[in-house]
Amino acid sequence: MKRILVIHGPNLNLLGKREPEVYGRITLKQINNELRKVAKKNNVTVTIKQSNHEGEIVDLIGKAKKKFSGLLINPAAYTHTSVAIRDAISASQIPTVEVHLSNIYSREEFRQKSLISPVCKGAILGFGIKSYILGLQALIDLLNAK
Amino acid sequence: MKRILVIHGPNLNLLGKREPEVYGRITLKQINNELRKVAKKNNVTVTIKQSNHEGEIVDLIGKAKKKFSGLLINPAAYTHTSVAIRDAISASQIPTVEVHLSNIYSREEFRQKSLISPVCKGAILGFGIKSYILGLQALIDLLNAK
Amino acid sequence: MKRILVIHGPNLNLLGKREPEVYGRITLKQINNELRKVAKKNNVTVTIKQSNHEGEIVDLIGKAKKKFSGLLINPAAYTHTSVAIRDAISASQIPTVEVHLSNIYSREEFRQKSLISPVCKGAILGFGIKSYILGLQALIDLLNAK
Amino acid sequence: MKRILVIHGPNLNLLGKREPEVYGRITLKQINNELRKVAKKNNVTVTIKQSNHEGEIVDLIGKAKKKFSGLLINPAAYTHTSVAIRDAISASQIPTVEVHLSNIYSREEFRQKSLISPVCKGAILGFGIKSYILGLQALIDLLNAK
Amino acid sequence: MKRILVIHGPNLNLLGKREPEVYGRITLKQINNELRKVAKKNNVTVTIKQSNHEGEIVDLIGKAKKKFSGLLINPAAYTHTSVAIRDAISASQIPTVEVHLSNIYSREEFRQKSLISPVCKGAILGFGIKSYILGLQALIDLLNAK
Amino acid sequence: MKRILVIHGPNLNLLGKREPEVYGRITLKQINNELRKVAKKNNVTVTIKQSNHEGEIVDLIGKAKKKFSGLLINPAAYTHTSVAIRDAISASQIPTVEVHLSNIYSREEFRQKSLISPVCKGAILGFGIKSYILGLQALIDLLNAK
Amino acid sequence: MKRILVIHGPNLNLLGKREPEVYGRITLKQINNELRKVAKKNNVTVTIKQSNHEGEIVDLIGKAKKKFSGLLINPAAYTHTSVAIRDAISASQIPTVEVHLSNIYSREEFRQKSLISPVCKGAILGFGIKSYILGLQALIDLLNAK
Amino acid sequence: MKRILVIHGPNLNLLGKREPEVYGRITLKQINNELRKVAKKNNVTVTIKQSNHEGEIVDLIGKAKKKFSGLLINPAAYTHTSVAIRDAISASQIPTVEVHLSNIYSREEFRQKSLISPVCKGAILGFGIKSYILGLQALIDLLNAK
Amino acid sequence: MKRILVIHGPNLNLLGKREPEVYGRITLKQINNELRKVAKKNNVTVTIKQSNHEGEIVDLIGKAKKKFSGLLINPAAYTHTSVAIRDAISASQIPTVEVHLSNIYSREEFRQKSLISPVCKGAILGFGIKSYILGLQALIDLLNAK
Amino acid sequence: MKRILVIHGPNLNLLGKREPEVYGRITLKQINNELRKVAKKNNVTVTIKQSNHEGEIVDLIGKAKKKFSGLLINPAAYTHTSVAIRDAISASQIPTVEVHLSNIYSREEFRQKSLISPVCKGAILGFGIKSYILGLQALIDLLNAK
Amino acid sequence: MKRILVIHGPNLNLLGKREPEVYGRITLKQINNELRKVAKKNNVTVTIKQSNHEGEIVDLIGKAKKKFSGLLINPAAYTHTSVAIRDAISASQIPTVEVHLSNIYSREEFRQKSLISPVCKGAILGFGIKSYILGLQALIDLLNAK
Amino acid sequence: MKRILVIHGPNLNLLGKREPEVYGRITLKQINNELRKVAKKNNVTVTIKQSNHEGEIVDLIGKAKKKFSGLLINPAAYTHTSVAIRDAISASQIPTVEVHLSNIYSREEFRQKSLISPVCKGAILGFGIKSYILGLQALIDLLNAK
Repeated sequence: MKRILVIHGPNLNLLGKREPEVYGRITLKQINNELRKVAKKNNVTVTIKQSNHEGEIVDLIGKAKKKFSGLLINPAAYTHTSVAIRDAISASQIPTVEVHLSNIYSREEFRQKSLISPVCKGAILGFGIKSYILGLQALIDLLNAK
Repeated sequence: MKRILVIHGPNLNLLGKREPEVYGRITLKQINNELRKVAKKNNVTVTIKQSNHEGEIVDLIGKAKKKFSGLLINPAAYTHTSVAIRDAISASQIPTVEVHLSNIYSREEFRQKSLISPVCKGAILGFGIKSYILGLQALIDLLNAK
Repeated sequence: MKRILVIHGPNLNLLGKREPEVYGRITLKQINNELRKVAKKNNVTVTIKQSNHEGEIVDLIGKAKKKFSGLLINPAAYTHTSVAIRDAISASQIPTVEVHLSNIYSREEFRQKSLISPVCKGAILGFGIKSYILGLQALIDLLNAK
Repeated sequence: MKRILVIHGPNLNLLGKREPEVYGRITLKQINNELRKVAKKNNVTVTIKQSNHEGEIVDLIGKAKKKFSGLLINPAAYTHTSVAIRDAISASQIPTVEVHLSNIYSREEFRQKSLISPVCKGAILGFGIKSYILGLQALIDLLNAK
Repeated sequence: MKRILVIHGPNLNLLGKREPEVYGRITLKQINNELRKVAKKNNVTVTIKQSNHEGEIVDLIGKAKKKFSGLLINPAAYTHTSVAIRDAISASQIPTVEVHLSNIYSREEFRQKSLISPVCKGAILGFGIKSYILGLQALIDLLNAK
Repeated sequence: MKRILVIHGPNLNLLGKREPEVYGRITLKQINNELRKVAKKNNVTVTIKQSNHEGEIVDLIGKAKKKFSGLLINPAAYTHTSVAIRDAISASQIPTVEVHLSNIYSREEFRQKSLISPVCKGAILGFGIKSYILGLQALIDLLNAK
Repeated sequence: MKRILVIHGPNLNLLGKREPEVYGRITLKQINNELRKVAKKNNVTVTIKQSNHEGEIVDLIGKAKKKFSGLLINPAAYTHTSVAIRDAISASQIPTVEVHLSNIYSREEFRQKSLISPVCKGAILGFGIKSYILGLQALIDLLNAK
Repeated sequence: MKRILVIHGPNLNLLGKREPEVYGRITLKQINNELRKVAKKNNVTVTIKQSNHEGEIVDLIGKAKKKFSGLLINPAAYTHTSVAIRDAISASQIPTVEVHLSNIYSREEFRQKSLISPVCKGAILGFGIKSYILGLQALIDLLNAK
Repeated sequence: MKRILVIHGPNLNLLGKREPEVYGRITLKQINNELRKVAKKNNVTVTIKQSNHEGEIVDLIGKAKKKFSGLLINPAAYTHTSVAIRDAISASQIPTVEVHLSNIYSREEFRQKSLISPVCKGAILGFGIKSYILGLQALIDLLNAK
Repeated sequence: MKRILVIHGPNLNLLGKREPEVYGRITLKQINNELRKVAKKNNVTVTIKQSNHEGEIVDLIGKAKKKFSGLLINPAAYTHTSVAIRDAISASQIPTVEVHLSNIYSREEFRQKSLISPVCKGAILGFGIKSYILGLQALIDLLNAK
Repeated sequence: MKRILVIHGPNLNLLGKREPEVYGRITLKQINNELRKVAKKNNVTVTIKQSNHEGEIVDLIGKAKKKFSGLLINPAAYTHTSVAIRDAISASQIPTVEVHLSNIYSREEFRQKSLISPVCKGAILGFGIKSYILGLQALIDLLNAK
Repeated sequence: MKRILVIHGPNLNLLGKREPEVYGRITLKQINNELRKVAKKNNVTVTIKQSNHEGEIVDLIGKAKKKFSGLLINPAAYTHTSVAIRDAISASQIPTVEVHLSNIYSREEFRQKSLISPVCKGAILGFGIKSYILGLQALIDLLNAK
């Protein structure tokens, strides 16, 4: 049975609790429930982590190789600044899919560059919570296709 | 019953016939069949066009408003150079999803910028033919959510 | 009797039908009627074309030399990307006036550069339909001054 | 009866007296006469100022709100360097039209940027003295349309 | 008894009279009254000037050395363009504090650079009229600390 | 009684212990005492944290909304690199004031850009320890003005 | 017998008819006759096309693989803007030689970059009609050397 | 007898009175005496002006044509920002020599660009008061050589 | 007896376990053993830390001054992004040597800039594990030379 | 009888001796023999030089005017860095053709700029030894056409 | 008796022999005679060298310290590219004056940067042969002033 | 017995004779003696050259392949400007180590880029004469490891 690691980057713990008029009322807990349903339906397991710490995310990816076949990550603010997370994904050699709730390319200029995309298999962005669902499905398909 | 327009940009007519070792052996016809299946399952209709002409794509989008509820587009090479297609999407006000077979952000620098993304609802890239399937699904979900 | 060619660039066929709250309710047909009135009053004829195709616009200008004394053009989205239209104007040696409905220099950065302006006699921008009227008048004055 | 302020920027006092082979033999006085004729025909009054001083132009615009309905300005060299004039126009909220004798976008690179354009209703450039005539007409039309 | 020169840069004379919905209803006169109260409480005198002229501001600073111990300046639009005011402050060797009503670093890009900051003791920005009060207080503290 | 969170960013724990000839002999403890005095005088409470960890600072701000009415932050080195802290402040919607001991705009080029300023109410920089005192006062005034 | 496709890009149909003092009096027809002579002497056939349409050129290259062993192209204005033609050449895998009548590197800055060169075997530029003759010869030699 | 206009730009009135340890103890008056001696020896007259106002300098140059054969200018801070002074020199067609006390190309980056140099006959920089003496001599030689 | 702190930056814990075909089979443990041997031979002690956390590395350096005479650091991915580590080294005033396993200047462009180098005594890069050995030797020599 | 100078730039003496798998097995001697054959057939003489010294190449071109009618040059590494060779060609006024063995526009970015091209009649690149043959032929044709 | 070294950079040996309509008919020999006259009048000796070789110029400056009190240099094309000559001047500690026949700041952009100016006492440019005369005079004055 | 070529770049012949307060009193001769000692101890021979000529250094490297197994180079000023030396090293395929006396990354911006580093095995910088010693040792280790 395949195992997938899901990482939520910085500030995503606040989802649904802050600025609901902007980000909607869905909480991280609800997203995680949806992810678990998709996993179950596809016969894989998911382990889900959230962290505001760049180093902690690097730790998680560094230890992931032994236990996980795939990585689903929303790097949030670290998308634009973290060479360390990029290196961790690259070193781990785990197939990785990048997701974003919003369309980062229609936001401020400094958000229109992803250091993470070049080391991922693919990216899905702009569909809110659906980005996660589609991303997990895409990742599972990638793993099954091998 | 909702109607969706699918546009394949320049050179995609060659898919599966050229450089199969790079782009795989799947032809545009096969992609279109897959898209029609997803459409049928979701109870929508799809109209599919391929064109190498920037102006023709602008024409298609310009006339789309009356007949279509959503647009799925792989702008291919025009992703990086066409302000006209961007303006057409923006003027049409049709919800649009952008897809790419490859991960454009891990290719040459001049491909790492999309003029189209800022006027789309979302984007999916890097999953080969799956990018289309996930993109169509995401677009249908968007339309149903309204 | 002097003959003037008027070219409307991409997406201008949608004028007045889309986003009236942004671009107003005046249609291209109404602009064309106004242009014909000015032409009549000044004793010149106008031939009016609209195209979404860069190549078609290049064709039109390429054939214009034999039949027309002046060119009035709103290159729209091609303003910012078309070296081919620039070269066509430059090669045709027809006196050309560039018009824009909106003030392109108060819009997005990628619209704040015109490849066409350097090969035109002058430019008028930001007065909506009036840009065309003033531009045609300016072009006629230029031609009469020769 | 509507009142319009016309401002000629730095060095325009030399018009027609210097380099006639470049700028033609028309003097500022003649331009002003033409402007007064157009004003008369349209039933508006014009007050005309020339200044080489950035601060003086800011003063003029700062005091213009109470007395004038519109501003016609050729900022000349300050086009490219004056944030102060831009702020003055923006603060005055007077509808403003920018004119230039020459096509600034076909001159040296440092002249191809206007700090003033983004706060104007529109711009007319490249028609010599005609730029003023067309600009005044465009401004009057704008004011009448309100 | 210490004497402080306060300089308000271009367009600040319009404060409270223009766009009150943007800049509030406080006039320059009211700001000056507040400054005089702070001065009185701290046992210093203030001389207050407003000018739209870059050269006049340079003159004021050039003559300030003999009469003033400190300078409080809101260079407004000249913040971004005046090397002359920068040089005047630098040459005068008078301790200077820069203030801005708005947070210039959250405005347009061309406003996000201050030529004046590097020659000032400190800067306070973004607190509206409070920027002046805090700035004057900071300047007095600096002078007393010597 | 209003509660304010004060965050000192990376390396500020070394204040007064290192390079006293550069940064002076004042320690973080002394700054904190001064801040507590100002707080007391103004009838607010302050909670003070120092951290070298970007993630920890994001955590602190993420949890601040429930307990604090305002945030005073010296982001130090993270000023120039942390999108995550910017997003945390933006998401928290707590009124925030940014302070710096030195005038960052007169230092090396890579320090002349603040990712944090655009999401703050205001900033005070260049007055050494006084920056904190003025910043706290400004923040309290902001909160009282609501 | 080897077959070679020759493509003349936008505005080249005007050759010899416009600005003969600049481009000389040689027409496209004469160039084509010269190319046919070289072809005959080398025992290959040439098929010659001219188009002002980017999309048409992409179409031609897309269909070329089955029928042609080599491509000689003067992309003219599309040299600097067309990613689509670049992709078409790259996908077609046909050995391609790029020619230009003028030395594009001694012209305006925006012409000093070729998007096409990196996917060609070689380039010849600056020899007027001779560029075509030398280019065809070079292409034939390349094909024979295989 | 030839007449030469000498213009000292902003802040030069402070020379010798401020920061003598940096700029030396020579005053503008002493420089002017030296210039008058050189003039006398060469049988020309000099008229000397100092102004902190960009507009005033533009005025002076604008009126100079009738009365002067040559211009010696130290534009000081306006060297780097004034298109208006550049245009005034260019329009006046008076042979102009630019001088600087210091070597501007070994100072801060924003001082390493002169907008004035391209419209001058020559420039002399870095020799303190000697720059003026050499510059005046060079200008006289230029005028005599005609 | 001199004490030296050795810091291994992010992802270096994976050394020898991942991509041995790229980075070789040497583990961090083996490197550390080599470093201890060099230390012993030179009569100094080494304390060795590895961390994926930017903040933790800042902490370590912040506390190093009291206990250590020198710092040997491989900042890995933080080389290119961490102003905080730079500031920590600069504040600590401990002589520091930077080492890299690979030649960062022959890798991707974003890796060809080190924020850390300007605050180090020297750097050694490209010799794999030998970079550490040579770097430790160089650091010891530096300390002995004082 | 016309005389042509051929200059081979730095490192070309190593041709065919180093990295034959990259540059092929053809030596400079063989290229020179081919050039002599073409010269003979066209009834011109060639003088051939190779130098690794920028100054020596400048010397050669400086003395070439008296003895040669044309120059064929492969500037190799100096293509991208030598203003001196550019000036020498420009001063010599000898018709010059630039050749390169490889397609420099498909190599590293710093090789994609030629300082030499703007002062040459034309350039031929990417055909290996054939670049020389075609270049010599093109040069002879140019000289005969005069 | 003071000794001065004069160095003429690359291509200056061609002066007066090439393009006399551009550079005038004065030869390097005549310039040198003028320099010797000035030297004699001022009671100093000059040693004059011309070289097209960067390394040779570095050699000359490297050996100059023992024999010369000052250096007058026209670095010509090496002005813009030679760090080695800059380092040589800087290491030699000989007072140096840079001269240029033309005004390099009104020529092509790549000539508008001097690597040499920052290590010179001063620079004189744009006066043709007079630049040398004035430069030598300025250098002698500098040496006498010590 | 392995043979190593050592090249000292421009101006290094002046070492220890000029500016001893900056570069120390160690001469090139002393460095060479140290290098010979290390060589002897490691049972290799060294051949040592110094040159101020870029072309001479290219010559040396071009001829090195036959006689030497490794190259130790301090390219000094040519580090930042010489594509020719880079190409020579690359063509020679000799394992090369780059050394610098100073930490070039803490000097002027134009020195913070090395064209040479990308074609070297590794680099050592900032340790004065020790850079050479460590560099030679690193090179010998590299050669022995093969």
